Amino acid sequence: MLKLSRRAQRIPASPIRKLHPLAEAARGRGVDVINLNIGQPDLPTPPEFFDAAARFGSPVLAYSPSQGIPAFIDGLIYYYAQNGMTVRPEEVMVTIGGSEAITMALLCCANPGDHVLTFEPFYTNYYSLAMMAGIQVDVCPTRIENGFRLPSQRTISKAITPKTRAIIACNPSNPTGAVLTPDEIEGLRRIARSKGLFIIADEVYREFCYDSPFNSFWHCEGLEDHLIIADSLSKRFSACGARLGSLLTRNKGLQQAFLRFGQARLSAGTFDQHAALPLLRLGRDYYDRVVGEYRKRRDTLVEALQMIPGVRCQKPEGAFYLLVDLPVDDSDKFCAWMLSDFSHEGATVMLAPANGFYATPGKGLTEVRIAYIVNTDRLRQGVRALQVALAQYPGRRGGA
Amino acid sequence: MLKLSRRAQRIPASPIRKLHPLAEAARGRGVDVINLNIGQPDLPTPPEFFDAAARFGSPVLAYSPSQGIPAFIDGLIYYYAQNGMTVRPEEVMVTIGGSEAITMALLCCANPGDHVLTFEPFYTNYYSLAMMAGIQVDVCPTRIENGFRLPSQRTISKAITPKTRAIIACNPSNPTGAVLTPDEIEGLRRIARSKGLFIIADEVYREFCYDSPFNSFWHCEGLEDHLIIADSLSKRFSACGARLGSLLTRNKGLQQAFLRFGQARLSAGTFDQHAALPLLRLGRDYYDRVVGEYRKRRDTLVEALQMIPGVRCQKPEGAFYLLVDLPVDDSDKFCAWMLSDFSHEGATVMLAPANGFYATPGKGLTEVRIAYIVNTDRLRQGVRALQVALAQYPGRRGGA
Repeated sequence: MLKLSRRAQRIPASPIRKLHPLAEAARGRGVDVINLNIGQPDLPTPPEFFDAAARFGSPVLAYSPSQGIPAFIDGLIYYYAQNGMTVRPEEVMVTIGGSEAITMALLCCANPGDHVLTFEPFYTNYYSLAMMAGIQVDVCPTRIENGFRLPSQRTISKAITPKTRAIIACNPSNPTGAVLTPDEIEGLRRIARSKGLFIIADEVYREFCYDSPFNSFWHCEGLEDHLIIADSLSKRFSACGARLGSLLTRNKGLQQAFLRFGQARLSAGTFDQHAALPLLRLGRDYYDRVVGEYRKRRDTLVEALQMIPGVRCQKPEGAFYLLVDLPVDDSDKFCAWMLSDFSHEGATVMLAPANGFYATPGKGLTEVRIAYIVNTDRLRQGVRALQVALAQYPGRRGGA
Repeated sequence: MLKLSRRAQRIPASPIRKLHPLAEAARGRGVDVINLNIGQPDLPTPPEFFDAAARFGSPVLAYSPSQGIPAFIDGLIYYYAQNGMTVRPEEVMVTIGGSEAITMALLCCANPGDHVLTFEPFYTNYYSLAMMAGIQVDVCPTRIENGFRLPSQRTISKAITPKTRAIIACNPSNPTGAVLTPDEIEGLRRIARSKGLFIIADEVYREFCYDSPFNSFWHCEGLEDHLIIADSLSKRFSACGARLGSLLTRNKGLQQAFLRFGQARLSAGTFDQHAALPLLRLGRDYYDRVVGEYRKRRDTLVEALQMIPGVRCQKPEGAFYLLVDLPVDDSDKFCAWMLSDFSHEGATVMLAPANGFYATPGKGLTEVRIAYIVNTDRLRQGVRALQVALAQYPGRRGGA
């Protein structure tokens, strides 16, 4: 009689978090579980955060303005300026993490029943957040063989229907690590203009580009009304628990709508904004150190993986993820098996089965996403365990 | 060409925040603006919050579990137990403020195009948050003349259509201050059961009951599958900026859905949960002090208002709001006029025009909501200024 809504019935469990109970059980048996499944950086949050938190000056922890604390908005503008992006205060909306940024962007671009387009494999939560808003996610495939380059403009255009309202582009990409080239960005710019679509550019991993400079959609000409940038402090400052992100747009209608949606949820965290403020003023040396560490990890990881027979991956240019094809029957089963039936020298590895990053049934079944969020020694230990696991796994595919 | 979604075009500006620019201008002219418009308590946040914030023990501010930090959930269970409510861990979902609690509840109860029913006047953001979810809010009227008592069961039943999925009951009520009687709760319980509806009980002001004990829907028999309680730490701990709330339900399907929606937005604030943990263990003396202070304010405010000719209000039993009918042509204009054209002994008052709390056009046009979130001296000063303003206001209605 009492039926839940369709979205409540259909929303998928997180593919990144669903193996958590098996990992807990393994730890309970004394196994050292090397977590490579979740995009939770291990690097310390800059101590400036905790110092500022300890100096909160007001006796009342009040709501902050719905758009964000003015000083925090100023800090974001400074941060963007350091990244070559000129942003005005009215173009910023402070959000409760990148998740709320994506949610608000979707709510403003599309009606219930409308569609948005993204590139498969894609960040799973686009699908869940769109479902909350009654929006359907369509996908255009990218392939591991060519390092997940975008399809041709023609292929992308063909995937656009009269119901499509926006293209979501994650750059650098979670889960593939691909960084959009200037040509790819130009292609999307043209399509957005010719088809009258919004672009929701998820630039959360902006700094994490290892081989070539990052290109933001913010610099695209003629996208003033089309572009929404979704951002988050989580990854660049190892501050996932602070739940702070932002939206940028030059579209004045969107600015108004973001503010009103923001008023409906009152404010982002006051304490978090206060504490995170000094992070926005960190200098180049901070980013150099962090990005240098992740680059080293990427190189270590890819080199070690490419030594394992039957494992296929390209060296990704950015973010801190790697999508890898494994010589197994089913990566869901393999990942579960590694946690429940396997250990090597007391350790095992927790990975994210990649089927959760695909919307097309049957795709990604032998792939996993690896997040390189542990140091190089531990990464090497993890890859050794993975290699042994692949040799022992009963569902191994092909010979090696 | 590039059209925003209908919800982005239609979402209203906050009626509580829309006079903010006029207040800023008044302050710029040196006027002392007494803020009685917003539900932002002035009492200090318990220092335990800031002490715990300064003792955050981990070098990495990581995501917390999507359901909430286990110790925080334990704290909530302790808090509920102190309020006579037996709650099990799986029945709790930690949310990003009461706003997210309402949002998640709506998303799980209703599809885009479905309706929910609430009692008018109502907390404005129900309307905005429902609009985000593609849900329409229908209303059943309550009246200032009888202290905003619920209509008869027959009247409520008549307002329910085949599209209605849930009833939202705010108890104690923002904006009226009315506290549901046992009979009113029993009436809603019967309707929910006979019509197969969810009840979303917003019990954020649970402690703020001045004349009789609070009755939670949690104790209703036979509502196991129907009931969702939405809650928030904001008001009871003067911690609005912490963005922490919770959902309670015994419905296992809803528990699963809340968790999955929670995974889609990853986690509530880790730092906020850590810092707010000791608040959940505060003893009876804390609540007695806080509730005693608000009771004193309510009595002071109502007594002073009832001395002003033409002003109509009932003594509300709970929350920290009062809905008052003023002898003016239009409370929107009057509230703006008080900020832009009036001061008395260097001060003026900022109120929330009540039309924003009504969905029915033309209703509440001469009413305002007063939040008694300043001390009694300042409340008396505010009411004196209001009285002088009413005497001077060019749009005064009726004689006095």
